[in-house]
Amino acid sequence: MRLGTLRMDASTVAVRIQAGRAVAVEGFTDVGHLLSNSDWRELALAAKQDMGVVDAISPQRWAPVIPRPSKIVCVGLNYRNHITEMGRELPQYPTLFAKYPEAITGPYDDIRVPSYAANAVDWEGELAVVVGDTLHRADIVGAARAIAGYTIINDVTMRDFQYRTTEWLQGKSFEGCSPLGPSLVTADEFATGSRLSTLVDGEVVQSAGTDDLVFDPATLVSYISQMFTLKPGDIIATGTPGGVGHACTPQRYLMDGSILETSVEGIGSMKNRLIVDL
Amino acid sequence: MRLGTLRMDASTVAVRIQAGRAVAVEGFTDVGHLLSNSDWRELALAAKQDMGVVDAISPQRWAPVIPRPSKIVCVGLNYRNHITEMGRELPQYPTLFAKYPEAITGPYDDIRVPSYAANAVDWEGELAVVVGDTLHRADIVGAARAIAGYTIINDVTMRDFQYRTTEWLQGKSFEGCSPLGPSLVTADEFATGSRLSTLVDGEVVQSAGTDDLVFDPATLVSYISQMFTLKPGDIIATGTPGGVGHACTPQRYLMDGSILETSVEGIGSMKNRLIVDL
Repeated sequence: MRLGTLRMDASTVAVRIQAGRAVAVEGFTDVGHLLSNSDWRELALAAKQDMGVVDAISPQRWAPVIPRPSKIVCVGLNYRNHITEMGRELPQYPTLFAKYPEAITGPYDDIRVPSYAANAVDWEGELAVVVGDTLHRADIVGAARAIAGYTIINDVTMRDFQYRTTEWLQGKSFEGCSPLGPSLVTADEFATGSRLSTLVDGEVVQSAGTDDLVFDPATLVSYISQMFTLKPGDIIATGTPGGVGHACTPQRYLMDGSILETSVEGIGSMKNRLIVDL
Repeated sequence: MRLGTLRMDASTVAVRIQAGRAVAVEGFTDVGHLLSNSDWRELALAAKQDMGVVDAISPQRWAPVIPRPSKIVCVGLNYRNHITEMGRELPQYPTLFAKYPEAITGPYDDIRVPSYAANAVDWEGELAVVVGDTLHRADIVGAARAIAGYTIINDVTMRDFQYRTTEWLQGKSFEGCSPLGPSLVTADEFATGSRLSTLVDGEVVQSAGTDDLVFDPATLVSYISQMFTLKPGDIIATGTPGGVGHACTPQRYLMDGSILETSVEGIGSMKNRLIVDL
């Protein structure tokens, strides 16, 4: 099953995408809202209100699939090839940091960066886990069962802000700079190892199988739940593979007008243009 | 003006504390809810429903003053004396990291730590800024104006988890381990430089004037708002002074039964017992 959040005039609505059509799950403003109901699968399957052919829907109408996650937990250094690229050893524990919900933007929205933060804007295409249940101190089996599905995030990072101090948060949470979407594919339909790709102005800069993770999705969910409760709609960004601009020689960043595409096989593609606000 | 959040049978209520009595601000479940109304000052002043003498209210009835902040932004290495203690130089930029709202607990609640996280539980008494307005890219004057007031947080930290990786998040967000409260004192009534104290089993372990900050509250609020929007009820934990257990020789941590008191002159005191859950 595939779910999305569609912008309406004054609000948004959760939709199921079925045979090329969007069908509204009435009474639910977005996929996060839908997941907070434990009958979300049945409710989505019972959706009836036809919103039209997906290909005829303007891309800008797609909202972040979870517009207001209560938490976004990001994982650093989780792809073997990215760890090698950064010159580090395989870690014993996942590196965790936060991104505030204000950082999220839609899958086809412009990424608007203020000029004071536009000097080292880098891409980090990532597979994102969407939590579908409330869980605390779950084992791996319980954690796997609590994964509603998968979507895509680009953990766009201001490298200069990230490295101002040892803590990365301030380079990771710029308002409206992290696209999330375009849709959620439920766990039963997602193929482990599906390829993640990031393109900048049409050039492939990242490409990796999502089975190159040191800590896989269920392991991450279980590990994180040892510390605090995960809730429906919470997002876990599983880390980025090799190929970030900061690791290029010379270093390479997004500029005003850059087109950033982030794709995962079986989920879809996001396409965002970077705009530097003067 | 002084505000608090009081637990009722099935919910909570925002109260103004006036002349030793708690007066309910009807229609508002907690201080965060109240602050989301731009007329919060007038609404609090108009409160009428007497809830009784504060001294007669059981301590356990005080909820975290903001039970569900949308964001908690923590500042590291912000007291000159703590920076010296940790052997570092004065920073050019504030060190920022996140604490998830699930970490919050009440000012007199037990801090329940699972045994696997009980090996290096440390205290970090802190002055907390409570944001009272929505602001993005504010200057220092605008930032100062957006501070509703001040409360106290103890940024209780599992040092072993904190230092598993370079990113501190996982030692900082254990469920229900960070007391917040007991009340909010509005900015106009808070005296800069008021003394912060932390006591463990009655012994003073931290004591500093809150004017020993490298980055003061308005500077922090302005700086953070350059990255993302701050909202009413958001919390900024301004950092801890010298005297943490991790910096003692030998290192010293909270144990099962330890009593942790955290006070700021003019705001009040929190008192929490640590319980290790086996």
